[in-house]
Order: sequence, then C-alpha cells, then structure tokens
Amino acid sequence: MTDERPPDAGIVTDRRYGDLPLADAATAAAIIAPDATVLTSGFGSVGYPKLVPLALAEDDRDLELTLVSSGNVGEEIDVALVESGAVARRFSYQSSRVARAMTNRREVAFSDRNASAIGDEVRYGALVDPDVAVVEAVAVGEDWFVPSTSLGQVPAFVAAADELIVELNYAQPRELQALHDIYRPDAPPNRGEIPLDDPGDRIGKPYVSFDPKKLIAVVETDRADSTYMFRDPTSDDLAIAENLGAFLADEVGRTPVFEDAVHLQFGVGSLGNALMGELKKLDFGGRDVVYFGELIQDGLLDMLDAGRLESASATSLALTSDGQDRLFADVERYAEDVVLRPADVSNHPGLIDRFGVVGVNSAIEFDLYGNVNSTHVGGKRMINGVGGSADFNRNSLVSVCALPARLTGRNVSRVVPMAFHVDHTEHDIDVFVTDQGVADVRGLSPVERAERIVENCAHPDYRADLRAYLDDVKTQDSHIPHDVNRAAEWQQ
Amino acid sequence: MTDERPPDAGIVTDRRYGDLPLADAATAAAIIAPDATVLTSGFGSVGYPKLVPLALAEDDRDLELTLVSSGNVGEEIDVALVESGAVARRFSYQSSRVARAMTNRREVAFSDRNASAIGDEVRYGALVDPDVAVVEAVAVGEDWFVPSTSLGQVPAFVAAADELIVELNYAQPRELQALHDIYRPDAPPNRGEIPLDDPGDRIGKPYVSFDPKKLIAVVETDRADSTYMFRDPTSDDLAIAENLGAFLADEVGRTPVFEDAVHLQFGVGSLGNALMGELKKLDFGGRDVVYFGELIQDGLLDMLDAGRLESASATSLALTSDGQDRLFADVERYAEDVVLRPADVSNHPGLIDRFGVVGVNSAIEFDLYGNVNSTHVGGKRMINGVGGSADFNRNSLVSVCALPARLTGRNVSRVVPMAFHVDHTEHDIDVFVTDQGVADVRGLSPVERAERIVENCAHPDYRADLRAYLDDVKTQDSHIPHDVNRAAEWQQ
Repeated sequence: MTDERPPDAGIVTDRRYGDLPLADAATAAAIIAPDATVLTSGFGSVGYPKLVPLALAEDDRDLELTLVSSGNVGEEIDVALVESGAVARRFSYQSSRVARAMTNRREVAFSDRNASAIGDEVRYGALVDPDVAVVEAVAVGEDWFVPSTSLGQVPAFVAAADELIVELNYAQPRELQALHDIYRPDAPPNRGEIPLDDPGDRIGKPYVSFDPKKLIAVVETDRADSTYMFRDPTSDDLAIAENLGAFLADEVGRTPVFEDAVHLQFGVGSLGNALMGELKKLDFGGRDVVYFGELIQDGLLDMLDAGRLESASATSLALTSDGQDRLFADVERYAEDVVLRPADVSNHPGLIDRFGVVGVNSAIEFDLYGNVNSTHVGGKRMINGVGGSADFNRNSLVSVCALPARLTGRNVSRVVPMAFHVDHTEHDIDVFVTDQGVADVRGLSPVERAERIVENCAHPDYRADLRAYLDDVKTQDSHIPHDVNRAAEWQQ
Repeated sequence: MTDERPPDAGIVTDRRYGDLPLADAATAAAIIAPDATVLTSGFGSVGYPKLVPLALAEDDRDLELTLVSSGNVGEEIDVALVESGAVARRFSYQSSRVARAMTNRREVAFSDRNASAIGDEVRYGALVDPDVAVVEAVAVGEDWFVPSTSLGQVPAFVAAADELIVELNYAQPRELQALHDIYRPDAPPNRGEIPLDDPGDRIGKPYVSFDPKKLIAVVETDRADSTYMFRDPTSDDLAIAENLGAFLADEVGRTPVFEDAVHLQFGVGSLGNALMGELKKLDFGGRDVVYFGELIQDGLLDMLDAGRLESASATSLALTSDGQDRLFADVERYAEDVVLRPADVSNHPGLIDRFGVVGVNSAIEFDLYGNVNSTHVGGKRMINGVGGSADFNRNSLVSVCALPARLTGRNVSRVVPMAFHVDHTEHDIDVFVTDQGVADVRGLSPVERAERIVENCAHPDYRADLRAYLDDVKTQDSHIPHDVNRAAEWQQ
C-alpha cells in the first residue's frame, strides 16, 4: 500500500491504495439484493465488470435484477447473466444474440435511451432507483478508482448508487489512467457550462471520486475484455467511403466553419472502421482533422500514426485485439492526443453544436422522406439500441446517414418507402450516403427529398419499385404522401 | 436625428438615427430579385414585416421567392404573399389555412426545421443561399436596429443575408427594447459556451448590429401585429391542467434538482394558455418558478403579477390583444423579469439541459409506444410545423406531452396504435397527460408503456379497441409488436 490518492498527472504506481474491502466475486455478488438495480460500467463492449456478473449468473437465489449499462457490454453480462434469467429489466443497449432474442420475446423488459442522457436519467430522471454500481478499474483507493477501457456513464452511476463494487482488473494496463478526463457537471439548474474549448483539452481528473462509505467490495481479476472483430471492408463499404469522401471534400470548402479544422464523428462498426480507413487518404485541403465522437476505433489510431489527426475525444476504446495491443504498448504517447470522457461530455448536445461536428452514423434503413430506423427490424424486432446516434444525428452541424443500399447477400433494400420505427426524424438528417451515391437533402421538401433519395441512393434492383411507389402516392394532395398498406407489403 | 448608437441600457428616445435609406414598400420590394431568398423576422405570429410582403404580393413580376421565417408570421405573409403565388419554397413554419393548403398540394415546397437550429442552418448549413433579410424594428440606426415583439432567428438571419430591409413600425412601442437580450454565439468550432447562468440574466445587447453596407431600405409603417385569440379553457383543458398539476406537485418532491426552483416551459396555444392559467394555483411547495421557454403567453403575465414567477425567458410575445396592451403599458416594469432572446439561445439544447427544464408540449397524437406526431394529420397532411417542440422534448429533464384524449367534438382518438409520422421518438417523452389521466412511462419497456398509456390516457370510448389491438399484437415475438395494416385502418 502506498499513498491514498492517485496522482492527478502521471500514472498510478500500484493497483490498490489504502484499506480496501477485498472479496471474491461470489461474496460480492451475494451482497447484491435479489431485486437490486445494478448499474455497470461498460461501453463499446469494453471496460465492463466480468466476475461479479458471472457470479450473479451462478447465484442460486431467484434474482430479478434491473441492469443498467450506458453502452455495449461483453458476454459475461450480455450472454451469461442475461441467459441465466437473473435480469428482469434492462437499460439501455444490448448486442448479443441471446439478449436480443430475450428482448424480442419480452422476457427482459428492455428500454433503450440516448447515450448522452442516461446518466442524468439515472441520477435525476426517475428512470430507476439505483442500488449498486459495479465498475471495472485499473487501480482503486478508499475514495477513488481509475476506470479501465471505457467511461460511459460510470461517474454518474457511481454518484447515483448507494453502494459500489469495484472489479480491479490486472489484465488492463494501469497506464489507461493517462487517457481519462473525468469532468462532472453539477446538478441542474446550477450545472453551468462544460468548459471544454477543444476536443483535445483536459478539464477533469484521471480518476472517479466517491463517498468512501459506498465501497462494499473490491474484487480482483485478470480476465481480459472482449475486443472487436471487424470484417475486411466489402466493396459496398469501399463505395460508401468513396462517396462520403467526395461529399466531404466538397463540403469542407462550403462554409467558413471548416476553414481551419473539421470535427468528425463516426459511428462504430465495420462500416465505420472502413470509413475511417479510407478517410486518412483524404487531405481535406490541409485542414486539421479532429475527432469528437463516442468510440476510438483502429482507424483513428492509423490516422494519428499517419499524422492525419490532431486529437480524438471519445468515451470508449472500441478496438480490435491488434488495436488494443498497439494502444496498450504506448498508452502515454497516444494519451497526448486521445482523451476518454464520460458519455455525458463526449455526447453532449451543446458540445456537438459548439464544435460544428460532421457526424456520420449508420442505421438499419431509411425511408424516402429521410426518416431513419436504427433499432428495430421491420419496425418490431430490436437489434441493439439507439446508443449515441441520436445525440450526433440531431446536434451535428452536418449529419450523415451512411449504409449499403441493400442488405449484403439478401434481397432486401435498405431504402424503404416508409420506416415503421423512427429513431431519427425527417428533421434530423442532412445527407444520405450509400454505395450508390449521395443524396444531400438540405433545403428540400419531403417529396423533393424522396426524388433525390430514389435516384441517388437506392440500389438499381429496387429503384424502379421505389420510383413507382413515389409516383403513385404523389397523386395524393399531401405534404408527405403515403400508402401505408403498400409500404407494409414492401416490408414483407 | 440624434445620436447614432442606441443606449445599451434605457430606451431609445427616437425612432430613426443617422442617415437612413428611407423608401416606400413598393420601392423596397422592387429591389428584391424575383428569385431571391428572403429571410424574415417573425415568431409566435408577431414581430414580422408587413408592408414589404404586401408589396411583394402585389408585385407584377413573376416571383419565385424562397421565404424563410424561424417561426409563425401573420396573414400579410402567410395569406397575402403566399396566396399571390410569389413563394416557391418556404421554411420553417406556417399556420394559415391558405399556406397549409398550398403546402399540402405541394404548390409551395415546404420543409420544417427545429426552431433552435434554423439560424445555424441558414448561416452555416447549406439550407439556403440567403439574399435579403426583411425585419421589423421599433428603432433603427445606420448599423443597428431594435427588434419589435419577437426575436426568433433575426440576428442570425441578418448576419447571413447580403442585404437588409428594415420595417420601422411605429405601432410597436420603443420600450420593447427593454425586453431584448441579444447574444450572438460565435461560429463553430470556436463558439464557446453560452454564458447564461440564470434565465432571468442578461448577457447581450438590446439591439442587433449589422454591417452598414447591408442596409438597402428602411420602410416606415404603423400597421399593428396580429395578436393571439385564445378560446376559453374547455373542460378537457381544465382536466388536463388538473392532471398535470397533480403530476408536477409530486414530481418536484422527487429529486433535489427541484429543491429550490422549478424551470418550466409550455408550448403555445389555447391548451398551453389554460395550463399556465391553472398553474398559478399550484404553490410548488414554496419553490421558485422560472420560465425558460419559447413564447410569453398571457398566463405568464398573470403569474408575474401574482408574484408566482421569478422570471420568464422566451423569444416572442405570443399575447392576446389584452395581454399586449397590458405589457405595452408597463414594458419597463415587466422587463425586470421578462427577457426576449434569439431562438438559438431560448431553445438551445445545452441550456435546456443545464436548467433541468420540465417541458410541456402538445401534439396532434401519440401512439401506444410513446411516439409523437406533432405535424402531419394521418401522417400525411401538414398542419403547422415542428417549431421548438423537438428542442424541448429531447433536452428537457422531464418532458411531458399533453393533449385531449380525443379530438374535441369529433369521433377521433388522439391516442393511436401507431403514429405514421414521428416528430418525437419513443426515446424523447417521459410523461403523457390527457384529460383522462397521467402515464409516467419512465423506466418502462415499450409494451409496458403501451399498457399504461391505454389505461391512463386513452378516452373510454376508444380504450377497449386500443386494448384489443394491444392484446392481439402482443402475441407476436417482437419488442415493439405492431400490425401496420390494422393500425392504418384505425387512422381511417
């Protein structure tokens, strides 16, 4: 045991500080009440607790937990714990096959929320009545811990919960501390402004503080995070990247907002990773490129290494195994340009506005009028959750929805007559990009948008059918003409 | 002619300052190119230019104007000018019978945008290529003017346009200057925070500055604003107000956010006015009540006069004729507590978040899962526009959607199985209130929301049918079960 406080600059030298309530996972899990509301760390499938969820999955009590994570977690939670039947209610993102199936059978009461807001909703918004936070850390003291590979809403969750269990993970490098910038907004109505002038700046501490009375257990582990597997870019991905690149090259010359620098955000996933890969080929006319988004992907490390990126601000490291090795081997150097923030800062509507972000996010489908469905296949069956896409789609200066015009290898158009679940409204998206082309719909009426989307974005296999639908409904005296029954047939 | 600058404090003593290009309306209108993009003042149906639009309506050139207002304007624009066929394209709100019919026949290419964002979209977002701003003022100099009864996006429009025409309206009192607080955010990415700590504070100037080279005409008029006519509260309005009051009385005790003060926003309209009327009867346990919204309605003046309101921040005076007389007779006293701001401040997502606003807005209908349609009857036919409702619904700490359970005097339920146009998604609204009751859906899964909405909010005439729909679709293995064809039948 050394000093009781972590250094504000530099890296902790030990893993444990002070007098800590060490416990094994089963003992810690047993403290959690059978009907508790449990708030976990985890975002981008990394930085989530592993042993306590596994112990809860094996707990022989009849558990009916409410489980809250601000983002994607790994299989210890999303498969083992959920499959055990211990989770009665779940917020706000899930991504395993098992969790998805149980959500769609409504065996788990699920609700997805915007990533920027769930911290406030837990603390102030009556979403849940929080009992215990279970978080992963790389170092812990009596009233502080250093989070691991993601932040998400961890600081808000720890503040909201009555009790705290820390999983101290020796498989995660202590040096992750160098990435963290943990700024806590005050409570409304006196919370003031977030004093962040540049995405690369630091305004907070590298650790989370808590009331020492909350800490009921510290569980040690060396179980590694799941990491991302990205497929190689498909020809569709590359065509989308090319179309997006052409749009961006024009766009940066259009307004003085982009005179010196372009602030970008990309949604996660194989497409997002491919887009970032292609992006480093663009020179943006010598402008600085800055990332203000949610997740650090391998493509961003490539851009940093190539000197093509000034800085990257996010809330999680959504890296492949290779990417993680690369980052872990050189955390302090990457920390000069990479900052991890709580999700209520990384995704803050006011900050996205201030930096004039160009946000690029994918979805399941979009419709002729520009409504976007990110979450429910056929409007009904949940895939993952809305995540942070609505934060960026709504608040970006230029919001781009990018996806392949058809579902790869299946006879399904991702441009549809009518979206039967809407996560982003016709007011939110400025530009649609597919492998077929770009539809910049700014300034267009709904029917004009539809014309451009059909011509520029739809796959040729479906263009004639979409065109016929549009021509037929246009005979209506309606601002947004529709034939719901015919649109429903299309879905089948 | 007196000094060339208006006083920053106190009230202008004259109407005209310096050497101004006075012109009659026809002469000013003739300067506007036939295909110009014209940005006008006007929000909440007040403070819009009147003579120049009327002159454009009578212009014998073949006009194809793009007309942009940030909010509701009066009949000189929305009836006379639109009906003349001079407007080819229109943003972002309209409310006359004539404009609505032409929008639905698509004789005008219309697109509605969020009130907070249209200033940035005009300046930086490629929505339009602005030519001339036409604004109403109560006083004007060579490089400044004092706006009249609304601000909306006037400062952004004036900054974006190449030319400026000022309508100097002698029917509007000079003393309106006392209400204005015109703060201009810088351009992204260096725009910084909006330094507003309290809705009653002032952070800007009482006038709009402009490049003097832009001013091409000053047109004098004494034509009065249209004013609001609110119907007397109906029994539905009063029942909604009672239900809302009961909810709010509970809610303010729930979280420390409301310990000292409650920050409220109410949508405009007869229902909004009735809600504000009833609200002054609530004592909120002695907490301060602060208004941070879009429009000042008569009910807010009542609350101020009764000492029940600390301050009111908005972008427009949506007052009845009586309310306007009352305010105009005593502007400087009201200005101690009433502040008018540009709409990119009054509706700013970051500020709505910071103040922990409880936002109450109406709509056309909401569906079982909590999706809200504010704009298109049957998903097709435009009514007015989304206005600022999405700003408050998304960013409020507690967002309430309030409407009568059925359309007054008609056999139509305003709780529907499925909304076929979505302006506010299932992620946005926390609480639904009708004359029938309150459905607090925070923390509920979609199907749980549906159960509560049917039981608590639907009108008894439709409850059994909605219940039957829900029971039938619940047999599906879907997170959000639906029967689109059956939902479409319901709409007919």
